[in-house]
Amino acid sequence: MSLVAVGTVAFDDIETPAGRAEKIVGGACTYISLAASYFMTPVRIVSVVGDDFPAEMLEYLKKRGVDLEGLQIKAGEKSFFWAGKYYRDLNTRDTLDTQLNVLATFDPVLPATYRNPDYLMLGNLTPQVQMRVLEQLKRRPKLVALDTMNFWMNSALNDLLAVLKKVDVLTINDEEARQLSGENSLVKAAKIIHEMGPKYLIIKKGEHGALLFHRGEIFFAPALPLADVTDPTGAGDTFAGGFMGWMAKTGDLSFGNMKRAVIYGSAMASFCVEQFGIERMKGLTPAMIQKRVQQFADLVHFQI
Amino acid sequence: MSLVAVGTVAFDDIETPAGRAEKIVGGACTYISLAASYFMTPVRIVSVVGDDFPAEMLEYLKKRGVDLEGLQIKAGEKSFFWAGKYYRDLNTRDTLDTQLNVLATFDPVLPATYRNPDYLMLGNLTPQVQMRVLEQLKRRPKLVALDTMNFWMNSALNDLLAVLKKVDVLTINDEEARQLSGENSLVKAAKIIHEMGPKYLIIKKGEHGALLFHRGEIFFAPALPLADVTDPTGAGDTFAGGFMGWMAKTGDLSFGNMKRAVIYGSAMASFCVEQFGIERMKGLTPAMIQKRVQQFADLVHFQI
Repeated sequence: MSLVAVGTVAFDDIETPAGRAEKIVGGACTYISLAASYFMTPVRIVSVVGDDFPAEMLEYLKKRGVDLEGLQIKAGEKSFFWAGKYYRDLNTRDTLDTQLNVLATFDPVLPATYRNPDYLMLGNLTPQVQMRVLEQLKRRPKLVALDTMNFWMNSALNDLLAVLKKVDVLTINDEEARQLSGENSLVKAAKIIHEMGPKYLIIKKGEHGALLFHRGEIFFAPALPLADVTDPTGAGDTFAGGFMGWMAKTGDLSFGNMKRAVIYGSAMASFCVEQFGIERMKGLTPAMIQKRVQQFADLVHFQI
Repeated sequence: MSLVAVGTVAFDDIETPAGRAEKIVGGACTYISLAASYFMTPVRIVSVVGDDFPAEMLEYLKKRGVDLEGLQIKAGEKSFFWAGKYYRDLNTRDTLDTQLNVLATFDPVLPATYRNPDYLMLGNLTPQVQMRVLEQLKRRPKLVALDTMNFWMNSALNDLLAVLKKVDVLTINDEEARQLSGENSLVKAAKIIHEMGPKYLIIKKGEHGALLFHRGEIFFAPALPLADVTDPTGAGDTFAGGFMGWMAKTGDLSFGNMKRAVIYGSAMASFCVEQFGIERMKGLTPAMIQKRVQQFADLVHFQI
């Protein structure tokens, strides 16, 4: 099964209670593609960077099976940059700086080999750019997932609603689900969001786990309680990458398999937060991932 | 197995986004004993009310198998009263009024039949009163659980630490676990709290579920996503009552059975929040409880 992922490839300055990291590689598409690459390759990415982006990082992504044909490299321009600081609880953060740079004029262009994907992950970007990607497809993929955030609900709601009509899976956090639906109960919010288009809704709650809703069915995946959380940046994108990587690897759209995909996504995210940026995502093995998935199973296991 | 529960029996004024309820029966011990009574009777309570407390409510508790011998009824005095208002997210609330009344001078006296319990639930009260109860026991119970809150950590920490040395299970919320331990990571917090005395730590996270820690082992129980949450008051006490009721019914202190107890406690709490006060706790049946426990099992079930 083929997988295309769209999103930012960028630099981040990050401050957390555990320390600081300056100008490290980040971006939604970086996390998505790295996580997915542990399940299937190639992961075809659609993104844009400036010529300040390190060649060795591009080489590393290639080595991991990430197809860079859809990555635009803009000569004389700078990559997207974000700086943020997390509070003690790691659930809230302040954005200290955002420099759009190449992202300001990003027009995603899908190479010919990208236009017929079975699985499509639309990472968090303007809804207009997400729509531009959908418009270039030759046929509807088996599964389209979209990640977004409150910023687009506030500034581009109509565009967001238009693109939501065309996706199968929406991934947002609990506050965003409440904002988008106008309902405080997540059960009621899910029903309203299903009506907007996505048959599947994944509500990401960070350290409180994730909920998968599908027309009356609910699955809850816990987060693994960790002794040390270094940097939550990219956890949601890593979750999405693990989720879509598993779906594309298996090609099984049953609810039972989607539950497994949520667990694999959660396991990948639990690795991601253990070190700054993408560091922890570099040296994983299938055995390490399988062991962690087993920890998720043990964590919630009981017999009535 | 015998069970003694200590805590308030009181009146509450409650305002939530779903509505208002005035001068309804509440109090930690009311919720604990009602929840526990679905698993075993008698539930022997230690508490105090004024003569303003409705006789028909006492009759109802008796009918449910609650032993009121340890309930002091103070002539000419008023029952403890609390008024609170919940915010839209139901996770935060303001206390609008607290009238200690009979609670100001409460000296718990255990009748002779209460002094040898197998299971003891010390509901949220001043740590001094909790200690007074422990001092009247003839021997150490099989299991002592204690509920407390940030208020006592701020105002009576030394007394709290003294009583913690004598309990097996501590139930607090995540912020309280962080405050008590000084650790942000709940995994690290649990280790520190184990050192304070409780071999078992239950961290209640409301709509985000509950964690049970026991010397390196961790169990996570989700909260059931509900379409309508009317009133969260008493959910934590109802959880504790279901938990201890199950433990006292089964008399099995294994970790596997304690996990089940956490699920039964969570199931009882999921009923409690569906209506104001104790209303929902009145008409339950074993079949309804069993069905809900099955929903908890289904909610987290996946196959790797």
